[in-house]
Amino acid sequence: MRIAVAGLGHVGAAAVRLLQENRDILAARAGCDLDIVAVAARDKAKPRACDLSGIEWINAMSDMALRDDVDLVVEAVGGASGAAYDLVAAALRRGKHVVTANKALIAARGVELATLAERSGAQLSFEAAVCGAVPVLKMLREGLAANRITAVRGILNGTCNYILTRMENEGADFADALADAQRLGYAESDPSDDIDGIDTANKLAILTAVAFGRAPDLGSIFVEGIRAVTLQDLRDAAAKGGRIKLLGIAECVTRDDGTQNVIQRVQPVFVPISEPIAAVDGVFNAVEITGDFSGQTLIQGRGAGEPTASALVADIVDIARGNRSYAFGVPAQSLDET
Amino acid sequence: MRIAVAGLGHVGAAAVRLLQENRDILAARAGCDLDIVAVAARDKAKPRACDLSGIEWINAMSDMALRDDVDLVVEAVGGASGAAYDLVAAALRRGKHVVTANKALIAARGVELATLAERSGAQLSFEAAVCGAVPVLKMLREGLAANRITAVRGILNGTCNYILTRMENEGADFADALADAQRLGYAESDPSDDIDGIDTANKLAILTAVAFGRAPDLGSIFVEGIRAVTLQDLRDAAAKGGRIKLLGIAECVTRDDGTQNVIQRVQPVFVPISEPIAAVDGVFNAVEITGDFSGQTLIQGRGAGEPTASALVADIVDIARGNRSYAFGVPAQSLDET
Repeated sequence: MRIAVAGLGHVGAAAVRLLQENRDILAARAGCDLDIVAVAARDKAKPRACDLSGIEWINAMSDMALRDDVDLVVEAVGGASGAAYDLVAAALRRGKHVVTANKALIAARGVELATLAERSGAQLSFEAAVCGAVPVLKMLREGLAANRITAVRGILNGTCNYILTRMENEGADFADALADAQRLGYAESDPSDDIDGIDTANKLAILTAVAFGRAPDLGSIFVEGIRAVTLQDLRDAAAKGGRIKLLGIAECVTRDDGTQNVIQRVQPVFVPISEPIAAVDGVFNAVEITGDFSGQTLIQGRGAGEPTASALVADIVDIARGNRSYAFGVPAQSLDET
Repeated sequence: MRIAVAGLGHVGAAAVRLLQENRDILAARAGCDLDIVAVAARDKAKPRACDLSGIEWINAMSDMALRDDVDLVVEAVGGASGAAYDLVAAALRRGKHVVTANKALIAARGVELATLAERSGAQLSFEAAVCGAVPVLKMLREGLAANRITAVRGILNGTCNYILTRMENEGADFADALADAQRLGYAESDPSDDIDGIDTANKLAILTAVAFGRAPDLGSIFVEGIRAVTLQDLRDAAAKGGRIKLLGIAECVTRDDGTQNVIQRVQPVFVPISEPIAAVDGVFNAVEITGDFSGQTLIQGRGAGEPTASALVADIVDIARGNRSYAFGVPAQSLDET
């Protein structure tokens, strides 16, 4: 399988390293060699955290989609439009598989892209878009496929969870904990995407889609971030036997007329310490899934560069093995509107 | 897909209920109807926790393997030999898929049975044998397929975890907590399989096989149960910032000569409360997996009847979809000896 990698930031560079360092076990598990034939990124001069020797550099990123010697495109560029969208759409149109970590793109235009994939017979996979290394989309689609899912809730943003944990553990207020996270590289210089809940909302929209067979719909999500959470709030919560966690929550509710609806929200929520998700600390991500026969399951793990590369490459191995699935678990046109 | 269910205890009966109650969503996800055509159990007169009307009762369980109208056999009989082995081996020989929850059978004879499956082209799946609803084998085989796994450790027996949690929470000694677990149905009248660590060892042997590509080898596991754990031990652990958990642990270690070995043990282990697995309480099962790129991931959920049925039926859906995998992730003959 001939792979082109677009975007060489933390995630893209880690994917290149992973494909190189674990080449032998990947070939055994995938049933074929996974070869990187080309890479692209915005700035060729910038140093990268991976060895690119012997790999062709493509100047115009979108050319990846046109090349006959590329079977699969890894999109680690980011952003809901622009270069990432153009590349993914063009690759899928030409029947090339796409593996992406881009939650904003999938939350905003996932149905359109899944439809392109179904038309051309290519696979579109985005396990890496939600919760780093944690294979939660596969778990919803396959491991818990026997269940009617009634609720999904998750700690989906490691930056927010790190800030809240730090505030609790060190009695720091929000501004200090944020500055700390920025210094350590856990938060961006412009942190609003994380701390205002946007990143969590993107991931929740994707989880909801796969869990409940609904089209991702960012507009229907009530979103509140953690800017207003004070140290006193955390202390009050502790005094009452709980903790405050920024959760993305999707619940299936039955209306008075018997029809069902999925309610989605992102909020800093009081969680009793007896609940497993309350124990998820620091930069860990976690998702709790409730099914009618499974009861509650919780899956947690790391986000960021290398763990996200683990998910990207697991999707590649699945595709190389010939495992195919609908991007959201069901055909794109059968996704219900929320 | 025409299914026969052998064994109608908690797990088998829950699988029948699941296949009936979620028939519509299962058909959509599997791409075909999942029909129960026959059942069998030791005692036909015994009341069962499921509706068997319209389903044929087979008196001689092993006849299931001979029937042309059966595509897949669910084995929920239990035991490492006898009826369960005879049925599974006969079904696989005749090319029928087998889905089983039987950890003792797979730990003892899994390689032999996987070999039979590979010869006939049938699928042998046993997600339900380890950790109830938690799809940990799929996670090792697929979701974390990009990683070199360096360690796996788990709380694999809900009975032991319930007893230890109860001792801690209520200051109960071991005998009282055990009696309590027996009264509530969380422990058998003969509890030795659970509390002496045998059940944990069976599950660990299977986890090790899938994680490291080694043949399950019960004999190589050091096993110590929880009979000797005292209330004072738990209090000492708490005073030192930790808890005692019965863990199954498999670690890949590098010998002086550079070769690698997998060391397996079942022991009540001191776990610092800062580690996520220390927070797993009561009847929950959990497995922590360390991979070179993923870092640590933890997956936890319920065992026992309905959750285990969730895993059995997820395996059936996978098979119906046409997803095929080697039982232990690699061909049976390529499994290394531990």
